[in-house]
Amino acid sequence: MIRAGIVGGTGYTGVELLRILVLHPQVEVSVVTSRADAGMRVDQLYPSLRGCCDVTFSLPELDNLKDCDVVFFATPNGTAMLMAEALLALGVKVIDLSADFRIKDQQEWEKWYGMQHNSPDLIAEAVYGLPEVNREQIKQARLIACPGCYPTAVQLGFLPLLEAGAIDEQHLIADVKSGVSGAGRKAEISSLMSEAGESFKAYAVSGHRHLPEIRQGLQNVARQAVGLTFVPHLTPMIRGIHATLYGRLNRKLDLQRVFEEKYREERFVDVLPSGSHADTRNVRGSNRCQIAVHQPQCGDTVVILSVIDNLVKGASGQAVQNMNLMFGLPEYLSLETVALYP
Amino acid sequence: MIRAGIVGGTGYTGVELLRILVLHPQVEVSVVTSRADAGMRVDQLYPSLRGCCDVTFSLPELDNLKDCDVVFFATPNGTAMLMAEALLALGVKVIDLSADFRIKDQQEWEKWYGMQHNSPDLIAEAVYGLPEVNREQIKQARLIACPGCYPTAVQLGFLPLLEAGAIDEQHLIADVKSGVSGAGRKAEISSLMSEAGESFKAYAVSGHRHLPEIRQGLQNVARQAVGLTFVPHLTPMIRGIHATLYGRLNRKLDLQRVFEEKYREERFVDVLPSGSHADTRNVRGSNRCQIAVHQPQCGDTVVILSVIDNLVKGASGQAVQNMNLMFGLPEYLSLETVALYP
Amino acid sequence: MIRAGIVGGTGYTGVELLRILVLHPQVEVSVVTSRADAGMRVDQLYPSLRGCCDVTFSLPELDNLKDCDVVFFATPNGTAMLMAEALLALGVKVIDLSADFRIKDQQEWEKWYGMQHNSPDLIAEAVYGLPEVNREQIKQARLIACPGCYPTAVQLGFLPLLEAGAIDEQHLIADVKSGVSGAGRKAEISSLMSEAGESFKAYAVSGHRHLPEIRQGLQNVARQAVGLTFVPHLTPMIRGIHATLYGRLNRKLDLQRVFEEKYREERFVDVLPSGSHADTRNVRGSNRCQIAVHQPQCGDTVVILSVIDNLVKGASGQAVQNMNLMFGLPEYLSLETVALYP
Amino acid sequence: MIRAGIVGGTGYTGVELLRILVLHPQVEVSVVTSRADAGMRVDQLYPSLRGCCDVTFSLPELDNLKDCDVVFFATPNGTAMLMAEALLALGVKVIDLSADFRIKDQQEWEKWYGMQHNSPDLIAEAVYGLPEVNREQIKQARLIACPGCYPTAVQLGFLPLLEAGAIDEQHLIADVKSGVSGAGRKAEISSLMSEAGESFKAYAVSGHRHLPEIRQGLQNVARQAVGLTFVPHLTPMIRGIHATLYGRLNRKLDLQRVFEEKYREERFVDVLPSGSHADTRNVRGSNRCQIAVHQPQCGDTVVILSVIDNLVKGASGQAVQNMNLMFGLPEYLSLETVALYP
Repeated sequence: MIRAGIVGGTGYTGVELLRILVLHPQVEVSVVTSRADAGMRVDQLYPSLRGCCDVTFSLPELDNLKDCDVVFFATPNGTAMLMAEALLALGVKVIDLSADFRIKDQQEWEKWYGMQHNSPDLIAEAVYGLPEVNREQIKQARLIACPGCYPTAVQLGFLPLLEAGAIDEQHLIADVKSGVSGAGRKAEISSLMSEAGESFKAYAVSGHRHLPEIRQGLQNVARQAVGLTFVPHLTPMIRGIHATLYGRLNRKLDLQRVFEEKYREERFVDVLPSGSHADTRNVRGSNRCQIAVHQPQCGDTVVILSVIDNLVKGASGQAVQNMNLMFGLPEYLSLETVALYP
Repeated sequence: MIRAGIVGGTGYTGVELLRILVLHPQVEVSVVTSRADAGMRVDQLYPSLRGCCDVTFSLPELDNLKDCDVVFFATPNGTAMLMAEALLALGVKVIDLSADFRIKDQQEWEKWYGMQHNSPDLIAEAVYGLPEVNREQIKQARLIACPGCYPTAVQLGFLPLLEAGAIDEQHLIADVKSGVSGAGRKAEISSLMSEAGESFKAYAVSGHRHLPEIRQGLQNVARQAVGLTFVPHLTPMIRGIHATLYGRLNRKLDLQRVFEEKYREERFVDVLPSGSHADTRNVRGSNRCQIAVHQPQCGDTVVILSVIDNLVKGASGQAVQNMNLMFGLPEYLSLETVALYP
Repeated sequence: MIRAGIVGGTGYTGVELLRILVLHPQVEVSVVTSRADAGMRVDQLYPSLRGCCDVTFSLPELDNLKDCDVVFFATPNGTAMLMAEALLALGVKVIDLSADFRIKDQQEWEKWYGMQHNSPDLIAEAVYGLPEVNREQIKQARLIACPGCYPTAVQLGFLPLLEAGAIDEQHLIADVKSGVSGAGRKAEISSLMSEAGESFKAYAVSGHRHLPEIRQGLQNVARQAVGLTFVPHLTPMIRGIHATLYGRLNRKLDLQRVFEEKYREERFVDVLPSGSHADTRNVRGSNRCQIAVHQPQCGDTVVILSVIDNLVKGASGQAVQNMNLMFGLPEYLSLETVALYP
Repeated sequence: MIRAGIVGGTGYTGVELLRILVLHPQVEVSVVTSRADAGMRVDQLYPSLRGCCDVTFSLPELDNLKDCDVVFFATPNGTAMLMAEALLALGVKVIDLSADFRIKDQQEWEKWYGMQHNSPDLIAEAVYGLPEVNREQIKQARLIACPGCYPTAVQLGFLPLLEAGAIDEQHLIADVKSGVSGAGRKAEISSLMSEAGESFKAYAVSGHRHLPEIRQGLQNVARQAVGLTFVPHLTPMIRGIHATLYGRLNRKLDLQRVFEEKYREERFVDVLPSGSHADTRNVRGSNRCQIAVHQPQCGDTVVILSVIDNLVKGASGQAVQNMNLMFGLPEYLSLETVALYP
């Protein structure tokens, strides 16, 4: 059994990790930390876990984590970078769901995240945990930087056409809509149901932290600089991301076939039949990305629809997918749940 | 492997049966019928099932179902009673999620359901599929009448006190709130999001079909006639039932202990710690009933809060729980999913 | 023109007062205070008011309010009692939307609100601002204690039968459901959309602050002590309260007629036709209470359904209705808006 | 008093017309028709109108409408074109909220709407009822074609830059999100709360009927053909449209100033301060369009955010605005309601 620890177990990605891991046949969750709630049973805070989880929150200290085989960081940005080095030195694998190791350019990271990076040496080592791109490196990795939720949906949607060199990489548009759980379990007025319910808005149009991450990922595939306009929106639902992606085609090609071939072997990326529309409800609670591709009025603009559950394929599910790869397990273990529809 | 058939696979209880059964280690779903959609692949109608379900809808005819070991009816009322006898004669077990066999008094059934019963002989044989009450009969049964969603939440909440003879059984009140999926996948104006969203209302106050079913169940336990006021409400969410139950205590007793002892061995009924409130989100997608019991201001009125997911413990999950019992399998097989929170 | 001031203009009852008052033909909103946002334009915080409101938040100091004809307190409990006396001394009328002057028994108030009352002398003078009960006193009042949202819906529903002496006043049950705006514009985790959306729960079953207020109001009408079980619930919508009220009839009477006669002259209480169900969407944004009365299966239990918009008839609309009465204006001025359906 | 008739009073635009018109100081709603509900009181179907509307649904026949001064068509497409000519001949002004007279090219109309146009002569006469573009023609018109909801939000957003010739008119993108009331009050499975709630999807990506309407409007301003990709989405709320518009700038200019100058005199178009994001809740129930303009990272892509309430500025409010203009009344009469926030 793999002994897993979760640092920051009180947020939504933390409890989602627990939802998945308590049913994982090869994992025992042995430590869940919370600075604020140390000493409280996890299932007191999260009654959905009653009967499945006997753990009590402990303090996020090295001593509590040192016997783990793997530690997940479901923490705000800036925490994993303080502890990763010590854990790795003890032979503990680290899977970071925060942004600490996602961006290879340290200065870029410091600019967008507004703090100094504490562990710059590890940035280079960290493997970006998007299995559909980096599967082999992930298998060998000690330290994984799990992609953000927006970046997962956007990259999986754009990659096939960038790889094929079929779109103008200078003018990509990603109009992306997220459910409110993406904002985390934080007491903020803007996330109140009275504010976010029954309403729709864009935010951070001038620049969102996921922009450099997406750009980096697209550039790695396009092998050149890309121009991207990324507009995130808040939509009045709890879970789900819907990315509507626009690109200008530079030649004629069978779009449906490009996508189907790219993802034929991928268990968690599902290319919908031609003419379909992707719907976030069909991936709610599942680790799957569903993608549809359109060429309206046979013009030169391609429209790609890419949906995920932001807490699963966009966070905790993908983290477990990475863990499975790192430990030589079947990639899909504990991730086969069917979406909760309706 | 148990070969299972689903008659009426296009409604919400049908697709929910599929969600649970496609992951069941001992079941192969071999037939799913739909009169309207025969010939279409199931996963074309329900993209959430892509990759998990290769079945094509067939017509609801005996010939298509005769090789099944068990057939679930996820149909409108009045359908199962037409086919059950023939299936049983072929040795096929029948689990009916509709109301056809729930009420033992045929006249009462005909009054509330507005049709003649076609198969009165089977009414007596049918076992009411509430495992917490009828577990042993279920194990022996050929024909199960699965409880309705409201009746499940209300009965599990009232039973401990009725068994204990601790409340005035003449003046029970069940104020129950349901999510909109309880109305089924039917094109009705009252279930439109523009109507049912952002609004709350009671309905059928003068008399709802679940009233005689609940009364019958409570009377079986109380061993006398009970007086029940049952008011169902529609609440703007998709899944979940919250029953708020009121009774007048006729003596002093340790309420928390009565409930805990009653359900100590039950895997799917979870008595929350004293002082808790039950929340439907904590059972969303799970087969669990969570119950809290209160005695406000130490008065003589007891308040019981009982929550379930109407499509799982209130319908398809309970149906699979019954199937597991009927086939001698562990009762919880394929039903251990943790609730999808948030 | 009446010069109106609003103390505590940044919460939901404050902005709702503004929504109503900026269109009031006899009112000029001259002061809106906010300790935190003093100096900011009101319409910067609330863009819905752009073009209708030129006011800038000022500090909640006497000097800023002394030229008002009336001051509304849309503040947390414990604020109005600190300023009311000084304002009244200056000849300013005071309408308090908080709970400071609602409960006549000072000790009871202090027990439920957990603080000492600072202005006990005014408790006796304050008129409870439920116009359907106290219209004449309101017209003469200097100081109004506006009813809470739950108490408004519950009292209007129970009053006709208590006045008629037709129900057992010792065993009243009020099962009440509120939208989340009732919790106010406060950064609290329990009010996040990810928590309160798609879920339903009871809270404060052991005792809610509105219990003594409701009990006091019912007792005034019943002219004796009443026994009340009050269970508030949180329902996943923004606006609206639905009270489902239960009482035991002590004699036969024409329920529909009792209600219609009681409220015949009331512009803001609408008794629905016999057999109707009340729906919160039909009063959304309006100052109206809609009531339906049922006697299921002709038994001895009466069920009353009473709906309001918690921010209008349950708070700011009722406050303006009181103001209209105090200043000798038509009671309905600026309150005739039709509900926003759908 | 203007005698107004509404043909098709049972849909959402019909009841929204009633909400606005029953409070209009210069209008008496004398006729409301419904083929299905003729003979029923309007406020029986819509209890929100109780006390404000004494009208009974009548049949949609000329004889019932001939004494009106103006008739609104809140009907499905294909109805207004059958009756408009006869009404105009009787001197009745006609305001059509459906699509019958929106598109000047008859063949284009017939292609997108799948029927033959019955009244081609009137197409030329009809004035497209977007006051911000056609105010003077509207004042003189007998027949108004009210814009669709998507076209209103998109045109108001793009017009300033197309007029200024500042964007590449060959590659416009309109990514637009609508609440579910846009689908109307029709019993359709896709509009059920269980389907449309808690989910987000694009639809009609290959071509939506509003595409030719938007293109025609933009071309009139650009004075040349435009290339437009229009992707509509369904968002889980009842009211509201949020258009996110993308264009490529062909020169440097002060975007904020262009928008502010264009709409300085417009009462119902509100350009938000630089750096703002538009939020549909701030126009809920109001006749206003709020617009924000951004130039992310100072690149060559402009992002315009434009929000309306689809039933008000996107339909019935705009229809009344047109009526006010046609009858020489102040344009804003009965349209000054402040948005219902929260």
